[in-house]
Amino acid sequence: MDVSGIFPALTTPYGEGGAVAIDYFKANLARYDQTGIAGFVVLGSTGESVLLSSTEAEALLIAAKEAAKPGKRLIAGTGAESTAETIARTKRAASIGFDVALVKTPFYYKPAYKPEVYLRHYRAVADASPIPVLLYSVPIFTGVSLETPDVLELAQHPNIIGIKDSSGVIQRVVEVVGQAPKRFQVLTGGASVVYPALAAGARGAILALGSALPERCVEIFDHFKRGQHAEAQALQQRLALASKTIVSENGIAGVKYAMDLRGYHGGMPRLPLLGLADEKKRQIADVVAQFEPSKATA
Amino acid sequence: MDVSGIFPALTTPYGEGGAVAIDYFKANLARYDQTGIAGFVVLGSTGESVLLSSTEAEALLIAAKEAAKPGKRLIAGTGAESTAETIARTKRAASIGFDVALVKTPFYYKPAYKPEVYLRHYRAVADASPIPVLLYSVPIFTGVSLETPDVLELAQHPNIIGIKDSSGVIQRVVEVVGQAPKRFQVLTGGASVVYPALAAGARGAILALGSALPERCVEIFDHFKRGQHAEAQALQQRLALASKTIVSENGIAGVKYAMDLRGYHGGMPRLPLLGLADEKKRQIADVVAQFEPSKATA
Amino acid sequence: MDVSGIFPALTTPYGEGGAVAIDYFKANLARYDQTGIAGFVVLGSTGESVLLSSTEAEALLIAAKEAAKPGKRLIAGTGAESTAETIARTKRAASIGFDVALVKTPFYYKPAYKPEVYLRHYRAVADASPIPVLLYSVPIFTGVSLETPDVLELAQHPNIIGIKDSSGVIQRVVEVVGQAPKRFQVLTGGASVVYPALAAGARGAILALGSALPERCVEIFDHFKRGQHAEAQALQQRLALASKTIVSENGIAGVKYAMDLRGYHGGMPRLPLLGLADEKKRQIADVVAQFEPSKATA
Amino acid sequence: MDVSGIFPALTTPYGEGGAVAIDYFKANLARYDQTGIAGFVVLGSTGESVLLSSTEAEALLIAAKEAAKPGKRLIAGTGAESTAETIARTKRAASIGFDVALVKTPFYYKPAYKPEVYLRHYRAVADASPIPVLLYSVPIFTGVSLETPDVLELAQHPNIIGIKDSSGVIQRVVEVVGQAPKRFQVLTGGASVVYPALAAGARGAILALGSALPERCVEIFDHFKRGQHAEAQALQQRLALASKTIVSENGIAGVKYAMDLRGYHGGMPRLPLLGLADEKKRQIADVVAQFEPSKATA
Repeated sequence: MDVSGIFPALTTPYGEGGAVAIDYFKANLARYDQTGIAGFVVLGSTGESVLLSSTEAEALLIAAKEAAKPGKRLIAGTGAESTAETIARTKRAASIGFDVALVKTPFYYKPAYKPEVYLRHYRAVADASPIPVLLYSVPIFTGVSLETPDVLELAQHPNIIGIKDSSGVIQRVVEVVGQAPKRFQVLTGGASVVYPALAAGARGAILALGSALPERCVEIFDHFKRGQHAEAQALQQRLALASKTIVSENGIAGVKYAMDLRGYHGGMPRLPLLGLADEKKRQIADVVAQFEPSKATA
Repeated sequence: MDVSGIFPALTTPYGEGGAVAIDYFKANLARYDQTGIAGFVVLGSTGESVLLSSTEAEALLIAAKEAAKPGKRLIAGTGAESTAETIARTKRAASIGFDVALVKTPFYYKPAYKPEVYLRHYRAVADASPIPVLLYSVPIFTGVSLETPDVLELAQHPNIIGIKDSSGVIQRVVEVVGQAPKRFQVLTGGASVVYPALAAGARGAILALGSALPERCVEIFDHFKRGQHAEAQALQQRLALASKTIVSENGIAGVKYAMDLRGYHGGMPRLPLLGLADEKKRQIADVVAQFEPSKATA
Repeated sequence: MDVSGIFPALTTPYGEGGAVAIDYFKANLARYDQTGIAGFVVLGSTGESVLLSSTEAEALLIAAKEAAKPGKRLIAGTGAESTAETIARTKRAASIGFDVALVKTPFYYKPAYKPEVYLRHYRAVADASPIPVLLYSVPIFTGVSLETPDVLELAQHPNIIGIKDSSGVIQRVVEVVGQAPKRFQVLTGGASVVYPALAAGARGAILALGSALPERCVEIFDHFKRGQHAEAQALQQRLALASKTIVSENGIAGVKYAMDLRGYHGGMPRLPLLGLADEKKRQIADVVAQFEPSKATA
Repeated sequence: MDVSGIFPALTTPYGEGGAVAIDYFKANLARYDQTGIAGFVVLGSTGESVLLSSTEAEALLIAAKEAAKPGKRLIAGTGAESTAETIARTKRAASIGFDVALVKTPFYYKPAYKPEVYLRHYRAVADASPIPVLLYSVPIFTGVSLETPDVLELAQHPNIIGIKDSSGVIQRVVEVVGQAPKRFQVLTGGASVVYPALAAGARGAILALGSALPERCVEIFDHFKRGQHAEAQALQQRLALASKTIVSENGIAGVKYAMDLRGYHGGMPRLPLLGLADEKKRQIADVVAQFEPSKATA
């Protein structure tokens, strides 16, 4: 199961009254299908998965399966705090037709979550899962991190095919790529370090920024593949600025607003997440505008 | 609504096959009812609330309402990541007959959770809640903290009656008690600092240790009330050691094992939480044994 | 060697051109001598010790010895990064006539400073020191902390008589007081938690705030000694607010400005520390004014 | 002033009795002179600068100036906590003949060190310095970090030519290189991320590992310069493992022991730093042995 390339971390659009808007969601996918992305990640952190009911979550998975162009990899976020619930969600995603389960670390009982806990949890999930599993470490949200020795241990499991590491710690990419089996694939979650991560041996990226600027995220991947160092470095600097303004400073509300500006269905996030102040909107508009001219030719 | 005194943070017992064991849960309450505790906290962090389905959670609330002796305060953990879901859970707890809602901070989208987000979230919940609201700040699990200025702001809301602060930061107790309206009640979540917290102006405590050693937790509160400084200080030192071994080092599994030793229905936690190694069990048994002789007379 | 009671952490005044002003320093001591403080701490963090030359440091020790009233305990900050340098400074302080050496943790090579390093360092210093040693843990500046097991281990050394713990972590006070030999004395460094720390078993405090408001810091200690709980709690709340504005938010510059307002020689700190903006000065003046009326009667 | 390339962060050897061994130090330099390194860093963190007297520090600068081959850049660590002392050390290094001053952040009074403090400090130093200044951010030791906006602000100063960023945060390299003037040079301090940092736009590295394995550190730089991506990536993985065992896990003692194994004068660090357990020595020996065969041909 090859998960190389660029994947947008999809957002969840809402309609009037705040219900999940499946039609908007499908419309977004139809447009992404026209870009060079490798596939889709549904129910990730950017998808507000922790703010959705299980019914809403399932509807989004079904919609993605229906809308995605054949050949695009379908990755479902299925991690829950409980091992049993994680397995249940993973099986459901598989039955709907998803290719890969992205399983974030349990994280609530941090002091109890010694490495042994993660090893047992992920092995239980990977044993039970009908589809390959991607580990998911996202310390900015969870406050916990999968460290290199744990990742290397889990990389031995035949049904664990890689990790999405959103820590931005490039040293871990170097260490894991250097020591894990060759089939184990590292994806970065940081749009500011895609090129350094690829240089370190990552196979691709799952990016919130990919929901707003998919063409440009694909472009940096292509520069790397072609050995265009100067172009990759220059584009990386621009994407870092865009990611800072859109994602780091404004979160999901920022990503959604940038999507609105680019003609996708972004909209507002769900409470307690708030919308953006006008000044923030202007800053995001400035950033998006810098990419528009070349987007036309992308 | 007076929430002074000592509240055990109740655990959730499981039966054969891992289902929630409502009968065990009720049996535990019946025994706690014989102690001097002020009431019960159901679905807190110690109750493995993040590992339960909504059906299981509701069954526990109903059981607690049925089992608790009249006059014991009933506090339900109702915090969810989404504001709407938190309100829904709070209304359900109220309709079941709970007295107070304990609402932990949303915490997943940490970088987006500026003070304004917490103010809006808690005000929306408190506005909608039929019962009084207790703020709940538990950084060891959530990685976020309600700071003094935010607490003081929220203390102005007529339906927010206090805070359970599990940070162990006594400075915050001093600051909040000193500046909030007199009706605003601070409860500590740290068994190692109950007496210093009371000295600082806290009204009581919600304690995981209270599920294993309720009599002793009540005893330190009584020492304080009677101005028995030397006794309170000495018992605090002993409780700190007990809390370290049972709670800090072994988490929910430790609390449940200590409960087993004392004749309650403790049992195993749910995965990914693991049971205890034999050495850990011995350490807990040693600690519990130190309290048994005097327990007999408590 | 009894170090109970309240000690101001002395500041270092500068004259025209920025040289240390020994006469101002002595004048401050002469006034402190009229209060109920137990003694003086020279060359602590508040004394800008890390910004002084060894010549300046020695001059301050000599001046304090000359100025202090007999019976006041003299405590010298002698901790350096190197063990040999710490011993040299400690011997020099002893030869000048100081009673106690306050030895902060080395802290630069954090990843290498395992507990074993601290045990060896402190034992080497305590073995070589002609005067008793107080451990000094001040994580807000050093980024490292002496944890309970290390403190308990070091408390066995006959020449280590206690610890100044500036972490504000009251749980550690409870643990150390409960388990260390009775002769081992815990002093807190946090003006916001003096009363809770005393309730937990601390013997006193070394306070930056004590340089500006020594009478009030002594007063809370006296309330505690007399069992005046309500008065202690109320004064603690006021001191917490004062400490926040003067010390936490404005650091040494804040302490010095508050001293200026109270007629001591405060003045400016040394660069890179900066002076205060006018608004900050006004806030400090407001706080100090709240204590003035009762200061007159103190 | 070009500071691109690889610089070893030199260690300080001691002789019998613990005095600095200038002859050993010079002998090390003579050997490094035969490699492809760009120059030397004296009195950095790896040089135990915080454990040396000012007399010892000056002797090391003089010795380095005498021993270094013409054309090798000479960089002196001159950062002290006080602005005045930093300027004095910088001027002394310049007068001895050093090319560049490496000025680490003051870090003791962390809560007071707002960005404004760092801007004023560095501008004062750069204004007064006869030689160009390199900023130095090393959070693992100092607990503080120069953030991108501060670096960009300081990059405008004509006498500040770059930064050594030892944080390992590659995102900051991308941001600074992308926005600072072209003349501003970023050097990484992390041997585990040299190649990703170069890919992100860094000009070189100052490495503790460079004192033990200078040829290999130079080799990865050369691979990058020649566009040999696969070779650079593969060597990076090996250097990351070496750096983990030698530097991250064993600190200065580890670097010095690896130097001993390679025929340099390493020796023991100064107390409170401790020597290595035998098992650690074996692990380091294993790592060094893996590089020996190719070292012969380097």
